[in-house]
Amino acid sequence: MTLRDDGAAALEWAADYLERVRDLPVLAQVEPGEIRARLPATPPEQGEPFAAVLADLEHKLLDGVTHWQSPRYFAYFANTGSEPGILAELLAATLNQVGILWRTSPVLQELEELACDWLRQLLGLPGTFVGHIEDSASTATLAALGAARAAAPGRRAVYTSEHAHSSVAKAARILELELRPVEVDDAYRLRPELLELADACAVVATIGTTSSAAIDPVPAIGDACEAAGAWLHVDAAYAGPAALCEELRPLFAGWKGADSIVVNPHKWLATPMDCSVLWTSRVDAFREAYSFVPEYLRASEDVVNLSELSVPLGRRFRALKLWAVLRCFGADGLRAMIREHVRLAGEFAGWVEGEPGWALCAPRHFSLVCFRRDGSDEDNEALLDRVNSSGEVFLSHARLDDRFVLRLAIGNAGTTEEDVRLAWDVLRREAA
Amino acid sequence: MTLRDDGAAALEWAADYLERVRDLPVLAQVEPGEIRARLPATPPEQGEPFAAVLADLEHKLLDGVTHWQSPRYFAYFANTGSEPGILAELLAATLNQVGILWRTSPVLQELEELACDWLRQLLGLPGTFVGHIEDSASTATLAALGAARAAAPGRRAVYTSEHAHSSVAKAARILELELRPVEVDDAYRLRPELLELADACAVVATIGTTSSAAIDPVPAIGDACEAAGAWLHVDAAYAGPAALCEELRPLFAGWKGADSIVVNPHKWLATPMDCSVLWTSRVDAFREAYSFVPEYLRASEDVVNLSELSVPLGRRFRALKLWAVLRCFGADGLRAMIREHVRLAGEFAGWVEGEPGWALCAPRHFSLVCFRRDGSDEDNEALLDRVNSSGEVFLSHARLDDRFVLRLAIGNAGTTEEDVRLAWDVLRREAA
Repeated sequence: MTLRDDGAAALEWAADYLERVRDLPVLAQVEPGEIRARLPATPPEQGEPFAAVLADLEHKLLDGVTHWQSPRYFAYFANTGSEPGILAELLAATLNQVGILWRTSPVLQELEELACDWLRQLLGLPGTFVGHIEDSASTATLAALGAARAAAPGRRAVYTSEHAHSSVAKAARILELELRPVEVDDAYRLRPELLELADACAVVATIGTTSSAAIDPVPAIGDACEAAGAWLHVDAAYAGPAALCEELRPLFAGWKGADSIVVNPHKWLATPMDCSVLWTSRVDAFREAYSFVPEYLRASEDVVNLSELSVPLGRRFRALKLWAVLRCFGADGLRAMIREHVRLAGEFAGWVEGEPGWALCAPRHFSLVCFRRDGSDEDNEALLDRVNSSGEVFLSHARLDDRFVLRLAIGNAGTTEEDVRLAWDVLRREAA
Repeated sequence: MTLRDDGAAALEWAADYLERVRDLPVLAQVEPGEIRARLPATPPEQGEPFAAVLADLEHKLLDGVTHWQSPRYFAYFANTGSEPGILAELLAATLNQVGILWRTSPVLQELEELACDWLRQLLGLPGTFVGHIEDSASTATLAALGAARAAAPGRRAVYTSEHAHSSVAKAARILELELRPVEVDDAYRLRPELLELADACAVVATIGTTSSAAIDPVPAIGDACEAAGAWLHVDAAYAGPAALCEELRPLFAGWKGADSIVVNPHKWLATPMDCSVLWTSRVDAFREAYSFVPEYLRASEDVVNLSELSVPLGRRFRALKLWAVLRCFGADGLRAMIREHVRLAGEFAGWVEGEPGWALCAPRHFSLVCFRRDGSDEDNEALLDRVNSSGEVFLSHARLDDRFVLRLAIGNAGTTEEDVRLAWDVLRREAA
């Protein structure tokens, strides 16, 4: 193969895909096992041309793609793999950097530190926060709680809202910390008066919960943590980028007091999977938890290697895509995208509120709307199944106050008001 | 920007880079902070064209790249980001799949299962092994030991060779397991008679240690594990792909009896970072350790989601590159690459053995040669520094029997006998 010729074909496929993705069925309309059954059960003995891979992608695999890139994707937290991010991934794979020590890729480490610092500035966080990139918020939260455990020997409890992401429970299980879920108030916010932190190493507060994008009262939680000497980790994986916008920044009150914060550019900042930024104001606790430099990795440079701050030893050159996105969109372009998503979510919420038989189910702060149709949980679940089976749009669900609710999450850079209107039309059609 | 135009420019840069990489200084010749100092300290307000990113990559960043893609890269474990892998990363970023549940990307899950199964077949492992992809062997070993801990409540010791990778110690610290390093014999192999497994949950055996590519006696270790009910995790992160070659497969004796095995296609299987395959014959123990399915992720399909077997919830579409590499090289092509690397390592070892004043320092099984020049540790370290500072080749070091030894690792698909000869010439020149 030649990279030029096969690359041109791959690039053409990619460009064409992005042009037609709006019209493809958003949720993959296949049964479990269907894609695998189309492929040979055994590997080829002889090499095949790359064109064969590309042909199979089109003819055998594409049906198994749930189109996260579709402007009509509204499930979980919708996202965008933008063009600068995509091309940066091509370049990163070409360079194939392996970040183990600074010297194994000075550019990887220094661009990762710089890109995280650029984003820190854009979010209005103080310079005491030092950032690095993890693959996911799950790993970032695990890393943060591991550092918190190292920083408070003998204290084994972790408090978090009963609406916190499941990754907190997973991290607690891995770290053998005792998870203490805290009840929420009527806006699905952690009730800080229920915190009893004497034996706690950490509290995980969320700005933008998965179920409803609720905002925990971070200032009060931070005060409690400070008084008790507990670590405050803020999970702003989804909502974090909204802090770029001055008018939304009040929603982030108190997060400057955190010991660690996670924000996922691969969620709402136009960056392809995977890119989860973890900042901490307590680098030493991370080193205490994660630094191992065996003889075969000893080097003469006086540098804290990024591998000393996280679980994996080797990391890939994720920083390139984050840096490319920040440059090609500019702060202005990213703010415009976020504001448009918030505006569209507001429009949709208005339509729901104005329609008899439908109701909003949670306060709306960002680009997520929780709603339901009058009727039983079963009715709403069946409605969601019909909507998603149509392939026209894709939404997901949550449970709030023990009721099944629908979630419409806006996060694709290509989503227009027409796309959101289509979702509303399909919902009403299937409900009728 | 348009993906077609900017993509064509990025692709041309990538193709050109791979054509000239052999002649670039292998180890980046910059000081810490030098790359970051070339870049603006603050992010741009307005978006810039992608061409500006590409220009900076060439003129500001390239000096900070340590060229893992160079055929003259011989440090740590040399690797290859091959062209099918690179283009698959372009396509994966374009599709921007987020593997959370099967339904969020059926193709991601099914291709990941298939590609891991293809590789399993190629390595001669039985069908009882079920594979998935992690970002790194560090994460895979953490995941395996977490499953081992879940499978043997109350047993907290982990045995491993004193030459095991540092990721074992890191995983033990995270999981709060007691690491018990075991002495090695004169070939740097774990001495199985020293295992006392009554309170052990696991043993990590290595096929191809980082320092010297030593091979622990896996059959004896496996017997001890079986007798004691301890989990056997085999770290074949580097050497694993050699099992594709029948004549090398005897070196993998006993690994079929493992509870889990990790092999990194991003090391010696032409796959770009990151791709670490973890197989287990005990899926249930992984689910016990890592399965959380909260309400907002409940779905109707009866499928074990890959996120139930590992730490992160979301995963990217890494399977596409592994599948593309297996197809475009074919088993035959991969075997040819591995055999050539082993042959070249044998040639180099022969030159060292035949030259007065130089000596081999460890048995050679795969594509790694450990050697030193007569003289002090300081002399050898200074020699290595001079060699790497020349930029002509890049080697690394280890400590064996408390002596500083040089490591030459062959793993780049483009490495020729001339490149290896150059390394030997530079070593002798700088030693003179």
